[in-house]
Amino acid sequence: VPKQDVRGLRIDALELSAELGSWDRRRFLEWRQGGLDCVHVTLAVFENAVETLRNLGALQRQIDENRDLVVHARRAGEIDTAVQSERTALIFGFQNTSPFEDSLDLVWAFHSAGVRVAQLTYNVQNSVGSGCWEDDAQGLSGYYGRSLIREMNQAGMLVDLSHCNERTCSDAIEASDKPVAITHGNPREFVGDDVELFRRNRSNRVLQALVEKGGVIGLSPYPRLAPMGKDCTLEKFCDMVAWTVDLLGIDHVGIGTDFVRGYDEPGVMDTAIKRWRMGRWSREVAIPSRGDVPLPTWMSGPADFGNFEQGLEKRGFSPADRQAILGGNWYRLFGQIFG
Amino acid sequence: VPKQDVRGLRIDALELSAELGSWDRRRFLEWRQGGLDCVHVTLAVFENAVETLRNLGALQRQIDENRDLVVHARRAGEIDTAVQSERTALIFGFQNTSPFEDSLDLVWAFHSAGVRVAQLTYNVQNSVGSGCWEDDAQGLSGYYGRSLIREMNQAGMLVDLSHCNERTCSDAIEASDKPVAITHGNPREFVGDDVELFRRNRSNRVLQALVEKGGVIGLSPYPRLAPMGKDCTLEKFCDMVAWTVDLLGIDHVGIGTDFVRGYDEPGVMDTAIKRWRMGRWSREVAIPSRGDVPLPTWMSGPADFGNFEQGLEKRGFSPADRQAILGGNWYRLFGQIFG
Repeated sequence: VPKQDVRGLRIDALELSAELGSWDRRRFLEWRQGGLDCVHVTLAVFENAVETLRNLGALQRQIDENRDLVVHARRAGEIDTAVQSERTALIFGFQNTSPFEDSLDLVWAFHSAGVRVAQLTYNVQNSVGSGCWEDDAQGLSGYYGRSLIREMNQAGMLVDLSHCNERTCSDAIEASDKPVAITHGNPREFVGDDVELFRRNRSNRVLQALVEKGGVIGLSPYPRLAPMGKDCTLEKFCDMVAWTVDLLGIDHVGIGTDFVRGYDEPGVMDTAIKRWRMGRWSREVAIPSRGDVPLPTWMSGPADFGNFEQGLEKRGFSPADRQAILGGNWYRLFGQIFG
Repeated sequence: VPKQDVRGLRIDALELSAELGSWDRRRFLEWRQGGLDCVHVTLAVFENAVETLRNLGALQRQIDENRDLVVHARRAGEIDTAVQSERTALIFGFQNTSPFEDSLDLVWAFHSAGVRVAQLTYNVQNSVGSGCWEDDAQGLSGYYGRSLIREMNQAGMLVDLSHCNERTCSDAIEASDKPVAITHGNPREFVGDDVELFRRNRSNRVLQALVEKGGVIGLSPYPRLAPMGKDCTLEKFCDMVAWTVDLLGIDHVGIGTDFVRGYDEPGVMDTAIKRWRMGRWSREVAIPSRGDVPLPTWMSGPADFGNFEQGLEKRGFSPADRQAILGGNWYRLFGQIFG
């Protein structure tokens, strides 16, 4: 009996940390403790092609040296292989299109290297589109932006809109022939504008367009964008899941924790947050930051992933619905896009 | 009945042309006409990482658009899949270590992108070792050179010594824990020093060390390094095969044509040869070149690959021996290295 028929797959649609150097055996063991069958990991935020190759190569070496715990997956079917061998499948992705260096051929090259997800832009504007801290009137670029989405569709690479602004989301959903994703984000109407990164959360209009295209959103307990911020309880999080399922339907909601090792290490996070908020394009932290935010105790790391299951059960979700939310929907979407 | 039990696999251990833009349907059709089941293609000669990514990505797109004829192979078993679907399997390789940019992590990154063969250096000295036109006393570098071979062994990437000098060949064979290859070259004792690129051919001492390590040499009809040069007949070529098999044993001899589309296009070849012989490191053609060399009529392109089979049969090679030479030995070596 395949595991997914019993408990269901557990897929985390986004975790970060390449630049913190924490893709290592300690993290891989946490994934196994949390029963995670698959994690989409970020290899680039503002990195160019060669810098990204270094991250990717270093991670492949880590995978090779810890092949009792993890395996790189290029197709959805390889998640099943990981389950059978009690390992966690890694899906490689970018949170920016910077590694492509405006070259369509590099989409195919990184696809060949196993990259299966690319977010169009990270917070700010680039040659493809605009991030969530830019003016919402600025959308997908007319030439490269549209060509890139066509090329990603053809190569079998998932378009991720998590850090894009409203218009870039809408434009990209329209331009794509295939379903797209918001791997980590929350519905703005439910969460409100009180959280630090409220611009990262999405309007109902964008979410409904996402669903019409067959896409999936990964809801996140990350304190900077979760309901009640750092005080978000498991119950409140599950209320958000229920609210979003009511809005979008059971087939379009998943989990994307946005987890990064280092939340609990203030020095590390100061440095990392500055890098994410400044890149190389600013001399100051241009995007507001209220400092370190403690993780919710019920989600202190990947080892706690099972708490989602318990919370959703308590909230009254059926076994089939829990399977869809905790992994089934991502598995279906990955299969559609990766081929 | 698998094809290799009937006729045997046909593997060409080296063809070039990325920079001539001739990885296209015309070439793929020639491969099918020649009954080629697998071709090792060169993606980089002096290119750096990003330039190589562009070549690799452009080729992947060509493969995607011609998937009725060709398929990218990462493992030896995928050559069988290609045979079953009547397509030609492409093995990706480099004729230099320039794409790694002295970073061990990039070995893993390009391995992840599907690169399975890398020649240590192309004609001249680099940070790894020395090419065949350098002083024969200069060998493998003590730090990066040895680390790189260890890393290639671990990642599953075949070390190719074709354009290395004598000492770099010996040092690398000694440093490698796994079998290595000379994908395209000839025995210097048989051919003599009269051909233009005589320094590309190898001494018996190196060839015997290669065999002790379990390696394979791909004999080449390329006129600049074949016996009798541009006047090499199929009979003379098969004499060389027989001579080399006598020296090294039937398990260690294969074919590597060094074919490049453009031999018959003087303008194209002038430009290409200048690039190969000058790189970015010389203002003049530092390595002797006697101008264009016509292809032997019996090997005017990949579509003629079947002539090797006929020539070897006429020369008295048994079916089993022909299978070993025309593909079986490369298949075995690829299986040992690629995993």
